[in-house]
Order: sequence, then C-alpha cells, then structure tokens
Amino acid sequence: MDLLKDAIINRGQVIDNEILKVDSFLNHQIDVNLLNEIGKELKKRFGNKNITKILTVEASGIAIACIVAQYFNVPVVFAKKTESKNLDKETYESDVYSFTKGKTYKIKVSKKYIDVSDRILVVDDFLANGRAAIGLKEIIESAGAELAGIGIVIEKGFQEGGQILRGMGVHVESLAIIDLMSEKEIKFK
Amino acid sequence: MDLLKDAIINRGQVIDNEILKVDSFLNHQIDVNLLNEIGKELKKRFGNKNITKILTVEASGIAIACIVAQYFNVPVVFAKKTESKNLDKETYESDVYSFTKGKTYKIKVSKKYIDVSDRILVVDDFLANGRAAIGLKEIIESAGAELAGIGIVIEKGFQEGGQILRGMGVHVESLAIIDLMSEKEIKFK
Repeated sequence: MDLLKDAIINRGQVIDNEILKVDSFLNHQIDVNLLNEIGKELKKRFGNKNITKILTVEASGIAIACIVAQYFNVPVVFAKKTESKNLDKETYESDVYSFTKGKTYKIKVSKKYIDVSDRILVVDDFLANGRAAIGLKEIIESAGAELAGIGIVIEKGFQEGGQILRGMGVHVESLAIIDLMSEKEIKFK
Repeated sequence: MDLLKDAIINRGQVIDNEILKVDSFLNHQIDVNLLNEIGKELKKRFGNKNITKILTVEASGIAIACIVAQYFNVPVVFAKKTESKNLDKETYESDVYSFTKGKTYKIKVSKKYIDVSDRILVVDDFLANGRAAIGLKEIIESAGAELAGIGIVIEKGFQEGGQILRGMGVHVESLAIIDLMSEKEIKFK
C-alpha cells in the first residue's frame, strides 16, 4: 500500500536502528484519512470472509479497528489489558509477553461479546514477535469462534511473528512489510 | 440525543446504583454506527468553532475521537496514560486523580502534536468528576492552544465535573446527561 509506505518513510522515524516511531500518524497523533484508506484496503483483502466482528487490543489498535469496521459494517471488540471494575467477571483470557516492557500481561474479553457464530478479523498497528496476535487467536479459539484473518498495518518482516502465524495457517495481510530498517533507510518487502 | 439515550436504557446496565456499564456499545464492544451518529451530533454543536484537532485520552476515548474526527476532517491526538519507550521526551503533562482506581496517574502528550495555532475539541466517553477533562484542559493551556469545547457522550449530571468545567467558562456539550440512576431506572436531564 503505497500511501502507507510513503507515510512510514516521510513521517516515521527509526531510533537506535530498532524502534520505528510512527506516532505522528498512527499511535499518538492519528491521521484518520490514512486509516480510512487502510480500511478500504483491508476490505478488499478480507471482504469475502463474511466477517462478523473486528477484534483488537487496547490502546492503539482501537483507532484502526473502529475506522476499519466501517467498511465491514460490524462492531469492534477490544481486549482489555488493564484491570477494570467495569469488566465482566466472565472473560476469555490470554497471557501475552511484551518484549518492549519485559513482562507478561493478561488480555481479557468479556464472554458476552464473542461467540461460536463469530467470524473474526483481528486488526492491529504492528506485527513483530506476534505475541499479541497469538493471544487474540487464543481468545477467539476459547470462544469457539473462527479467526477469519489478521490485518496488520506494519509488519516487521525481520521478526518472527508473521512466519509463526502464517505457519499456523492463519491468513495474515500486512499492508507494509519492513524487510530492514536503520536510521538511514527503511526497505519494504 | 434520543438514539443514545435509548442505547443507554436498553443496552446499558446500572450496578450497585453507582456504576453505569455501557460496555456492550461504548467501551469494550463498540457500536461504530452509533459513534457515527454521535460524530454528526457533535459536528452540529461544534461545527462553527474551526476545530483543528480532536484530543482525548486512552483507551476508550480513542474510538469516539477517531469516528468524530471524520466529521471535522482533522487529526486525533490521544494522551497516553502509560509509560512508553516510543513517547517523546518532550511532553505536556498533567496529573489526574482517578476515583475509580483510588490513585493519581499522569497523562502525557508529545509537544510535537499540539501548538499555539490549535483550536481543540476534547472528546470522551464519560464526564463524572471531571478530573480527566481538567487534565486535558491543562495540557492544552500548557501548549498555548485554545480549548474550543468538550464533547461528552455520557455526563453523570449528579457528579460535579460538568458544573466545574462550565463554571470555568468551558463550552461543554454532553449528548446524554443522567440526572439519577439506580438498578431500577435511569433518568435523563
């Protein structure tokens, strides 16, 4: 998706050859017009899957999920990372290890909002080691629902998440796959 | 806004006469069609304010902010509650006391994404004691930007936030104001 790759190159920033900062348009300030183009593209790629629900995880996934959901005309559900006294007691849960934070956290979805009739599209801003996506996959399986696919804005192709998920037979579509990045350049697959 | 009031009555739930659970359509599962109607309504109420940016705070505010932003054709910025190694060092900050959690947390916005030329509409799902909204107001003032108004989905009219903010001269528009609620009934202003 050229518009997205242009945004990554022109408005993104690589720090320490390791962190890709896209907080000018994706996960702090949000370019809603770009998200709409992402929504159109994911609709092209998953439009024949009879999606009933979009699932993501808080916080930055929520922006993408809500705009994308408009093209599928389905509700969004976002998994919660934090304890909330408003969350139902009955939840599907999964443990997710965060390499960035060096610790494991729990993600939770109320049992009310996913069921066996659902065909679910997972969306998220990044796919790197794949732990968050695998956690969401586990939650979908616990509910007996179908994981119809995973739509990712930016995949770090040099990390293992994409390979693991595709190896599990999951239909993963990433709109920009980064082959290598440094402070000097970003190369896409 | 009748559609919203109907959703609160038919799909919301009051627990212990104190907590209004709207996680079936607003802050866990999200009814994106309803958010679009909320966006149209906020555009009617703030459309003449030359808004340049929508500001909210993670996590549940992000959904509303992104859908609403489409009607103003402006970017969203969401304040971060959690430490992130991707966040700029240079931030505007405010301390927000959470009555729900019984503790103070910091909200932060990168200095890159708000400046003196901005006329900002704050949006959020709830207005109760007003601490989050006041924190966002402080961040806007620190940046020398203008707080053009605050658009709220559900105001708990029996708590002090609305009165405090309106008393400060802020233009607050709440699409549903709850006068009283119990497990038996919800009355709107």
